[in-house]
Amino acid sequence: MKVGVVGLGLIGGSMAKAVKKKTEHTVLGWDVSETIRYSALLMEAVHGFMEDGNPKDCDLILLGLYPQLTIEYIKAHAKDFKKGAVVVDCAGVKRVVCEQVQAVAEENGFTFVGAHPMAGVERSGFTYSTADMFNGATLVVTPYKGTDLGLMNALSMFFKKLGFARLKFTTTEEHDAMIAYTSQLAHVVSSAYVKGALSDNFKDFSGGSFQDMTRVARLNENMWTELFLDNGDNLANEIDSLIARMQAYSTAIKAKDADTLCELLREGREKCIAIDEIKDFD
Amino acid sequence: MKVGVVGLGLIGGSMAKAVKKKTEHTVLGWDVSETIRYSALLMEAVHGFMEDGNPKDCDLILLGLYPQLTIEYIKAHAKDFKKGAVVVDCAGVKRVVCEQVQAVAEENGFTFVGAHPMAGVERSGFTYSTADMFNGATLVVTPYKGTDLGLMNALSMFFKKLGFARLKFTTTEEHDAMIAYTSQLAHVVSSAYVKGALSDNFKDFSGGSFQDMTRVARLNENMWTELFLDNGDNLANEIDSLIARMQAYSTAIKAKDADTLCELLREGREKCIAIDEIKDFD
Repeated sequence: MKVGVVGLGLIGGSMAKAVKKKTEHTVLGWDVSETIRYSALLMEAVHGFMEDGNPKDCDLILLGLYPQLTIEYIKAHAKDFKKGAVVVDCAGVKRVVCEQVQAVAEENGFTFVGAHPMAGVERSGFTYSTADMFNGATLVVTPYKGTDLGLMNALSMFFKKLGFARLKFTTTEEHDAMIAYTSQLAHVVSSAYVKGALSDNFKDFSGGSFQDMTRVARLNENMWTELFLDNGDNLANEIDSLIARMQAYSTAIKAKDADTLCELLREGREKCIAIDEIKDFD
Repeated sequence: MKVGVVGLGLIGGSMAKAVKKKTEHTVLGWDVSETIRYSALLMEAVHGFMEDGNPKDCDLILLGLYPQLTIEYIKAHAKDFKKGAVVVDCAGVKRVVCEQVQAVAEENGFTFVGAHPMAGVERSGFTYSTADMFNGATLVVTPYKGTDLGLMNALSMFFKKLGFARLKFTTTEEHDAMIAYTSQLAHVVSSAYVKGALSDNFKDFSGGSFQDMTRVARLNENMWTELFLDNGDNLANEIDSLIARMQAYSTAIKAKDADTLCELLREGREKCIAIDEIKDFD
């Protein structure tokens, strides 16, 4: 089949490279940047281009775009998709995208499946994309109720060929709530942590935990601003909850309350061990 | 020379193994636990024992003890140290230890040098100790004013033989302020982060940042309670500062203020790049 990939950044570029390297499908790419389009062709990430980004020739279209651009692209090309075409996005928030796209897909005879690859590196852009980006990763998928199960099975086999270890099917609501905690909150903490007054001198005083805390602060602020605001209810709640939990440690320390502080730390250690065990049973 | 190692936990055990493997010195070990003492002997981490933990035969004594036990050991054995012996501790806070030990060392004719290895793993105890624990790490050293420079040079050569890449000489005040930010704060954040209501389901929704955030929550709560309270002024200040920085993100998100949020994230990215460059010039 013909697979179209729109948006050849870190994720879209990696999708194109993975499809081209690991399947027999024809990969047609598109990016608003002519430089990136020709880079993708020269690097053999794609077989050719989607003319003006039009999806008309494609059976499967993978979108590697920011959330609002994902919605805009689908609306702009609503009448261009082949009947029966399948469109899968990769945006990091799912409620806003899936809600706005559902009616457009139904009215125009194509299928939309929301997805979010749990993969990435602390860099952005086509330059850092790789065919092996998704090896071992989970693809979170948020299909509409009633999406054809045969299609979901075919997509599952397709994405596993790209390297994904598993697909996690869930609702857009659970996706957005979970991602606020596991990913977006980590990016807020990293960004806030690295701005400490003493960070210039960290290298002489760190055994690794500082680097862990600040790794993802090297983010693309334009993309993450959009992701954060599209999931603002969940994320603000997670930030405020973490702040409340951190304040308990500060209060215990100021009160020199060893028993409470030790209990707070013990609870954290036990939670850490408990969730590690959940992981080990996988 | 004879090197005594008191407290054969993760750090003391690793010191003993490193001295035994990487130098020609005789290593005498001690731990309050008989099981650990004999484990150390069987594992050939030590040549023999310091009888009842007495340092009388040792030229260099390395202490792998909690801060208060470090102080207690030195005071209890004040008259037992050989004249001219050198005692180096590894406690994670330096003001409280160095202040209380200075007069004892001067009055009893031995030299005390405060130190803190920037190394470790998210486990504790002799079981996890290794001869290569310190390879490439920094040893932060907080000598008293007037400590003999020839001795410092000899210690520097000794610790580099154990695998340390460099020694960082600083004051106890700078050590404690820096470590509150680079290490202790990271442990508070990890401990608070992992206790989020959604942590049980993290494995399907994480590309790595959640694991980075929570790795060090698997800490020894007894040791860290003591370390935190011995550095409570610095640490409470760091927690409160980070909370204030995080609140700015929450406020911008609730106000749907994209410009402010993007600026907060941009500042974090630029700081991250700036301090990476400092590291690269090393």
